Amino acid sequence: MSFDFSVRVYWEDTDAGGIVFYANYLKFFERARTEWLRSLGIGQQALRDSTGGMFVVSETQLKYLAPARLDDVLRVSTVLLETGRASLTLAQSVVKIAPDDAVKMRQESLLCQGTIRIGWVDASSMKPSRIPSTVLEALT
Amino acid sequence: MSFDFSVRVYWEDTDAGGIVFYANYLKFFERARTEWLRSLGIGQQALRDSTGGMFVVSETQLKYLAPARLDDVLRVSTVLLETGRASLTLAQSVVKIAPDDAVKMRQESLLCQGTIRIGWVDASSMKPSRIPSTVLEALT
Amino acid sequence: MSFDFSVRVYWEDTDAGGIVFYANYLKFFERARTEWLRSLGIGQQALRDSTGGMFVVSETQLKYLAPARLDDVLRVSTVLLETGRASLTLAQSVVKIAPDDAVKMRQESLLCQGTIRIGWVDASSMKPSRIPSTVLEALT
Amino acid sequence: MSFDFSVRVYWEDTDAGGIVFYANYLKFFERARTEWLRSLGIGQQALRDSTGGMFVVSETQLKYLAPARLDDVLRVSTVLLETGRASLTLAQSVVKIAPDDAVKMRQESLLCQGTIRIGWVDASSMKPSRIPSTVLEALT
Repeated sequence: MSFDFSVRVYWEDTDAGGIVFYANYLKFFERARTEWLRSLGIGQQALRDSTGGMFVVSETQLKYLAPARLDDVLRVSTVLLETGRASLTLAQSVVKIAPDDAVKMRQESLLCQGTIRIGWVDASSMKPSRIPSTVLEALT
Repeated sequence: MSFDFSVRVYWEDTDAGGIVFYANYLKFFERARTEWLRSLGIGQQALRDSTGGMFVVSETQLKYLAPARLDDVLRVSTVLLETGRASLTLAQSVVKIAPDDAVKMRQESLLCQGTIRIGWVDASSMKPSRIPSTVLEALT
Repeated sequence: MSFDFSVRVYWEDTDAGGIVFYANYLKFFERARTEWLRSLGIGQQALRDSTGGMFVVSETQLKYLAPARLDDVLRVSTVLLETGRASLTLAQSVVKIAPDDAVKMRQESLLCQGTIRIGWVDASSMKPSRIPSTVLEALT
Repeated sequence: MSFDFSVRVYWEDTDAGGIVFYANYLKFFERARTEWLRSLGIGQQALRDSTGGMFVVSETQLKYLAPARLDDVLRVSTVLLETGRASLTLAQSVVKIAPDDAVKMRQESLLCQGTIRIGWVDASSMKPSRIPSTVLEALT
């Protein structure tokens, strides 16, 4: 099951190479994970207020296959790969869906794919901790 | 006539003060101006390809009245104040519309307001230039 | 009395226009203010830990006069204009000092100038508060 | 042989978790690679002007081990692992060196480590291309 989320490329996302600055794909992935969690009824600020914990990113692996440019519309897909007691692993990818109509096949327009591992920590000590059961239940 | 555009606050927008980093309101304003132009049929990348020119920001004045936080939904309003031969002046503001339901009145939830001046330049020389007539017509 | 601080332009600072993204001058100004405070013996994290308060930006006025590009070295100058009980007003400017050796006169290489107002707030309530006396003494 | 470069953590680098936003380590790595290239006599803007090519990041693998906070001073170390005809692979890491004096041993203060692959492309077509021989000679 994949969760899809769209982002538009704005000036802030680009660099002097005329393309999206590669670090910004992590922002696109982050937004998509946040909306994926929200779609499951999980608000991160509310969760932190109620549990004192938060998700932090512990590992990222990204491959950049083709560039995105200003005004492009991108689809970020998120799939939950693995659920542990204190961490989650997700596969995420970015595909260009507009405005270049000539690009029809998904294979050709895949821009970036990655694996992201996030861990649950106590927000004040930053120590790893067990993911709240309400969150785990919402995920499964 | 005001053009309204919504943005969600993500982790990338916040800083260690627990609030949206003030420089990022310029990004929210930028996104809103881009969508406002798009709503008028003006795509900035297409325009640059066809005319060799682009808009650049020449002046910004912002007042920060109240903070936004993670997960907030903000409405960015854009009003065209003045149209010159080589520049435009816009009033922009950010209002919090969610998730804090207690905030009902627009007056109380105004977070940031500003005036932005953008000029048209030749993209290679960066010299000021007359705004293309197709753009001016779309604006009026 | 002006406090000078240098920044180098990296890829992260630029946009698809081939120049420094205008919102990033606020980051350069912020770094310079932080180092100016540090030069006066004021560490913002330490100050927050000891007083529970922090500076927040309440107003910014910037004019963008000429663009900076990748690899440029910029000098950010900071001058304290006004000291109030709960706020400070500073004049800040960015001048290009390298690598374009042809630009010799300061007048010609002024890229950006601005006025920044910062207020002191209680970090948890975000309410305006009096600047700690140790900070005021360090400033004068 | 390792190239070391220092960065200070400013407000812009942090997020509402009170720590450096993980995507920003890619910025720190980028700055360090740029200064590493510069130390070898390679200026990226000059190189692009003279060859029409540029480096782009094609792959990143990062592990986040411990958080950095406002005012921390970080040392970014860069080691060239592999040199190909069209790409380079580098190991990069971030260690906290200040202001937390209690942290003495390098092992304990390692915050982030990663492997970055960069490829050489033609700047207009974005197609992979052979790294200019002057660059390869400077690297070896």
